[in-house]
Amino acid sequence: MYLIKSNGYDVEIGIKIFKSISSLITKKKYSSHFIICDENTFQFCLPNLISNCPKLREAHIIELESGEASKSLEFSAHVWQTLIENKADKNSLVVNLGGGVVSDLGGFCASTYKRGIDFINIPTTLLSMADASVGGKTGIDFSGLKNSIGTFTQPKGVFIDPDFLETLPSRHFQNGLAEIFKIALICDKKFWNELKTADVKVAAKDIIAKGVALKNKIVSKDPFDNGIRKTLNFGHTIGHAIESMLLGSSNELLHGEAIVIGMLIESHLSYQKKLFSKNELDEVLNVFKNVFQPNKINDLNLDSIFELMKNDKKSTNNKFQFALIDKIGSCKFDLAVSDLQIKKAIEFYNTSF
Amino acid sequence: MYLIKSNGYDVEIGIKIFKSISSLITKKKYSSHFIICDENTFQFCLPNLISNCPKLREAHIIELESGEASKSLEFSAHVWQTLIENKADKNSLVVNLGGGVVSDLGGFCASTYKRGIDFINIPTTLLSMADASVGGKTGIDFSGLKNSIGTFTQPKGVFIDPDFLETLPSRHFQNGLAEIFKIALICDKKFWNELKTADVKVAAKDIIAKGVALKNKIVSKDPFDNGIRKTLNFGHTIGHAIESMLLGSSNELLHGEAIVIGMLIESHLSYQKKLFSKNELDEVLNVFKNVFQPNKINDLNLDSIFELMKNDKKSTNNKFQFALIDKIGSCKFDLAVSDLQIKKAIEFYNTSF
Repeated sequence: MYLIKSNGYDVEIGIKIFKSISSLITKKKYSSHFIICDENTFQFCLPNLISNCPKLREAHIIELESGEASKSLEFSAHVWQTLIENKADKNSLVVNLGGGVVSDLGGFCASTYKRGIDFINIPTTLLSMADASVGGKTGIDFSGLKNSIGTFTQPKGVFIDPDFLETLPSRHFQNGLAEIFKIALICDKKFWNELKTADVKVAAKDIIAKGVALKNKIVSKDPFDNGIRKTLNFGHTIGHAIESMLLGSSNELLHGEAIVIGMLIESHLSYQKKLFSKNELDEVLNVFKNVFQPNKINDLNLDSIFELMKNDKKSTNNKFQFALIDKIGSCKFDLAVSDLQIKKAIEFYNTSF
Repeated sequence: MYLIKSNGYDVEIGIKIFKSISSLITKKKYSSHFIICDENTFQFCLPNLISNCPKLREAHIIELESGEASKSLEFSAHVWQTLIENKADKNSLVVNLGGGVVSDLGGFCASTYKRGIDFINIPTTLLSMADASVGGKTGIDFSGLKNSIGTFTQPKGVFIDPDFLETLPSRHFQNGLAEIFKIALICDKKFWNELKTADVKVAAKDIIAKGVALKNKIVSKDPFDNGIRKTLNFGHTIGHAIESMLLGSSNELLHGEAIVIGMLIESHLSYQKKLFSKNELDEVLNVFKNVFQPNKINDLNLDSIFELMKNDKKSTNNKFQFALIDKIGSCKFDLAVSDLQIKKAIEFYNTSF
């Protein structure tokens, strides 16, 4: 079992999480419990959770449809309404059982219901285990912009059981790997070298623990995203814009898929800005070719991407600010990049990946 | 000028607030500015603000209709949409120019936009000057429940110009007085004695400063409402339920008007619980008769009031918890009260005030 101390709560990784959840719930004497899940975790994870945590047998279940479209203001209103109708009070608990959609939305609803009630996260996808389990970000999409409404609120605990990954479709496993490769690229060359050759499915537990510990170190230093935490945005300035753009279309990408594209394009920005050698660029490209499926973006409208980037939370004073790796395992932030450089980098992606 | 140090920001009370606002805005170098106001502050306060703060001349104005009905999720969506359309980024500022409706809603929208952007409050009603200027509570009404969705977020500054009260209708002045009398009742007998005989309009600045300083002392000790801050709920357990019940009806009460009713009913609870003598009860009743207009509640449905109280943020495990004064200038909290005691206290109100 791994135990990672985060900002006021623990991330526990192992097979005994149900015992820990039960003991937290018993200790806190919550007045009522609400479990938010999607149709997949309802089927594959909820029975296991409930049978192992007796206190949750009478929990109210709120089920959403899996997929980013549920991270909406409309669904938040449904969650708040359900809490009110079932008389949730300030001493009630929300249990988020699912991937990032469930924990982002559930965390947002809990953090704003009666000005904040307790919630815990039980991430069931690799992405949410590795990425969303530390950092305290909650949020919903609004007006076509990802996470444009949200809060910084820490859960009371995060409980990761890698066994949940057994029922996770392969595309969703890759989705989580993207963020794990990112954390290695920005801050740990040794971990990057391990990942290059690892059997990631077999080593899932260790890889998650390493990824969470690295991210936790960064967010603990900068809880509100004003400094070093910005390095976590590597791949995200472009990646988020592409993800937002394709949201709801037939080519909709998973977050990690968009971030893979973003990391490659932004690696080329590093190369153009002479932060990064041709060799290093080739190394990232080749590793990614080996691990990830390519997604073509030839027909994307550049002006729309620029427009979306301006609306991104990372944008300030309408200037594009990038976090760029300056060597494998190291990252700088608040770097200005020109429109032309972005165009060239996208061209590189379209012709190389 | 009075300067009260609150949780990470200052409350400034005086006639030179525009200079201070200008200097804050200049120092922070905000990328854009948004002023939220209602039709009254648009007419009576905005011209003054803009002409005295040159940096705000190009601010985007978001105007809401005065009244509690604007503190809605729908209007929050309008605010977020306006912020997005005008490319507000993480370095933008929201200026809340108005009463509690404006600062509660504006604070909520700012605290959740891109996970939180800066906002300042310029309260223009006595209630918002005396009550909403410290404590960090933001919120909107949802599903008929007051402030059921919101956050604890501190503004970057609160700027109080008592001159704004000159255009405030008399009913709204009384509305604010209710919270000032409450703070005296729960923690400062000397202030209560001063208030009994004061010409409150003439002494407005000093009374506001005293009220804010007393409240600030309490909320600083207990920022998240878990202990002594609950004494501020005196008059509010019953008062909020009555206010919620009449919301949208032709007998809709202002917050302070409901709280006056709540304080009298809850004073009678103190009397029934032998915390409070008959003499003390009479004193509160007589002072309130002298200062406030009576509002009859004879035809209220008791079951509905109990139902609303169960849904109140102050309720835990479905039990009614009251903050009750045990003598003038002192208050206890987490006191259980029976349905019958509440019925008797309401009867007292209906036959005495």
